[in-house]
Amino acid sequence: MRPIPETMRALELRSYEGGADSLALVEKPVPRPGKGQALVRVAASPVNPSDLMFLRGMYGIKKRLPVVPGFECSGEVVAAGGGVWPRYLVGKRVACAAPTSGDGTWAEFMLADASHCIPLRRATDIEQASTMIVNPFTAWALVGMAKEARAEAIVQTAAASALGRMIVRLATSRGVQSVNVVRRAEQVELLRSEGAANVLNSSDEDFDERLREMCKRLRATVLLDAVAGELTGRVLRAMPSGATAIVYGALSLGGCLVDPRSLIFERKSVRGFWLSDWIRTQGALGKFRASGNVQKLLGNELKTEIRERLPLERAAEGIKQYAHEMTGGKLLLVPGLEAGGRKQEQEAD
Amino acid sequence: MRPIPETMRALELRSYEGGADSLALVEKPVPRPGKGQALVRVAASPVNPSDLMFLRGMYGIKKRLPVVPGFECSGEVVAAGGGVWPRYLVGKRVACAAPTSGDGTWAEFMLADASHCIPLRRATDIEQASTMIVNPFTAWALVGMAKEARAEAIVQTAAASALGRMIVRLATSRGVQSVNVVRRAEQVELLRSEGAANVLNSSDEDFDERLREMCKRLRATVLLDAVAGELTGRVLRAMPSGATAIVYGALSLGGCLVDPRSLIFERKSVRGFWLSDWIRTQGALGKFRASGNVQKLLGNELKTEIRERLPLERAAEGIKQYAHEMTGGKLLLVPGLEAGGRKQEQEAD
Repeated sequence: MRPIPETMRALELRSYEGGADSLALVEKPVPRPGKGQALVRVAASPVNPSDLMFLRGMYGIKKRLPVVPGFECSGEVVAAGGGVWPRYLVGKRVACAAPTSGDGTWAEFMLADASHCIPLRRATDIEQASTMIVNPFTAWALVGMAKEARAEAIVQTAAASALGRMIVRLATSRGVQSVNVVRRAEQVELLRSEGAANVLNSSDEDFDERLREMCKRLRATVLLDAVAGELTGRVLRAMPSGATAIVYGALSLGGCLVDPRSLIFERKSVRGFWLSDWIRTQGALGKFRASGNVQKLLGNELKTEIRERLPLERAAEGIKQYAHEMTGGKLLLVPGLEAGGRKQEQEAD
Repeated sequence: MRPIPETMRALELRSYEGGADSLALVEKPVPRPGKGQALVRVAASPVNPSDLMFLRGMYGIKKRLPVVPGFECSGEVVAAGGGVWPRYLVGKRVACAAPTSGDGTWAEFMLADASHCIPLRRATDIEQASTMIVNPFTAWALVGMAKEARAEAIVQTAAASALGRMIVRLATSRGVQSVNVVRRAEQVELLRSEGAANVLNSSDEDFDERLREMCKRLRATVLLDAVAGELTGRVLRAMPSGATAIVYGALSLGGCLVDPRSLIFERKSVRGFWLSDWIRTQGALGKFRASGNVQKLLGNELKTEIRERLPLERAAEGIKQYAHEMTGGKLLLVPGLEAGGRKQEQEAD
């Protein structure tokens, strides 16, 4: 293994008001792992919609500033504190989630709770692994919830997002049909080109009518909503009596506007989904099982399309662009990437 | 019993667009009961917020027009079609709900499904019985749902309404505390004068802060919401993680506006309540038990304050006034009441 340096480059968030504009590249000491911790040399870390919420102080967790953002990454465990599991991980390639307090993944190194590290199979691609937790686990959990609710079909908003496209594929493979709502014509094309059926554009004049007809025909009783705002209630209104909206994102930044008549007279309901809560309630066995299943599907149903790879030096600018246009693949921050070139950390485990 | 005339006076709704303005007093044939039906000579019938929604075409049921509105009444069964139960009811004082199609209670006579008639105890006041189903059963069901959800306290909006005041008393007697939200100072006074604690005025500047403190201290985890609009999400935001809003009315006429962060990061949820659904799911025994309990509490926890009694001739105008100011007691339509006088149908059973 390469030696661990004394200092590292990291992106730091300076203020929630400033958001992405307050991101700064800094040089700071490489942290030392304590008991139960693993030091991860970050190979790649994605920018997710939840990161954008975090940068604006709108996420479920507000960390003390300044702090390194980033919720997930892949990399290699290069050092460990006390404990059997942390020591087992040394030298292994892992996917891992950032701790709930302190620095996250947008840096050359990150200190992870060893329990938040998932060792990778030999066949797992390190870039795909960097996006393995937030989106694939969310897709896995949401489709599982739809199955539990005995939904024959789901409706989903923001269906052209990386997560939305995973949900289409995963739902199909698990026998659940999907009605896919997007807001632009090119997103309709994108989804259709990937084989998705039942794609509707919310900007079309006959959207509500077609949505109602489709939901009725396919018996779509669960809405997976990443947009919030007026769309939540608009879609819910078109769904059959008894439908449930599960809100897991707020891309519109607006409050969910829901017709009280949908709630009162049609037994419809609205609740939320937060991956952190879901993981907490799974128990060790459930987590282990989900990790195995998700990793197996990572190259297929749960594959992430990568749009761009940026070194930390160019990350802040890239993040601002990504915030304006999220369709078309993920932005990955790759600390080992030099400007202009590409260097991937794929050392054998 | 007095003879049954050939024709009767009734209020008819002519158009949902016109609402209360399209109510007309008509003379129409007294209907003849078929199998399973009872003909009720109406003693009194209240005007409820759900009636106002019905008049505007915003209720869960839209009947074919013209139609006699009114969802509940008390009276005497004066004739019956085939069946043991209908025949048993003849000569009995009853509280009853209107059928889901066809004419309702705002008339001298109404044709009821005999299964929707509840025979009254001797001690039960005929005017109180006229408001026995919509509000008392709703209060009974809602407080029961809060108990089932193991809520130590509830928050309720429109707490100064007839139903809200029942909920305060019933919750207290069943060991559930209430946080009572109103929007005007005189409503605060009214509730306090009736012994309600924890009354908050949503028009006060420190409302959100005090609501948050109160909900936390009392562990109020269920919101009973009759207002909808932005108040639903505003109150829900102030409640502890895991809180549920049960929307049962839409007095604001606005869509429920709910912060997606409440749903995602705080495990809060929103659903509805409709008495018709609740009754349908209770089963015969549950209905029987609820009827007994509600009737026992009718003079006390579930007492309705009567503000005004109007004959059908003056009803349309009274309904329009009531729509503007619902606090301060119920408006009862009393078909037997002559203009200026008062004649109550309290014949012995």
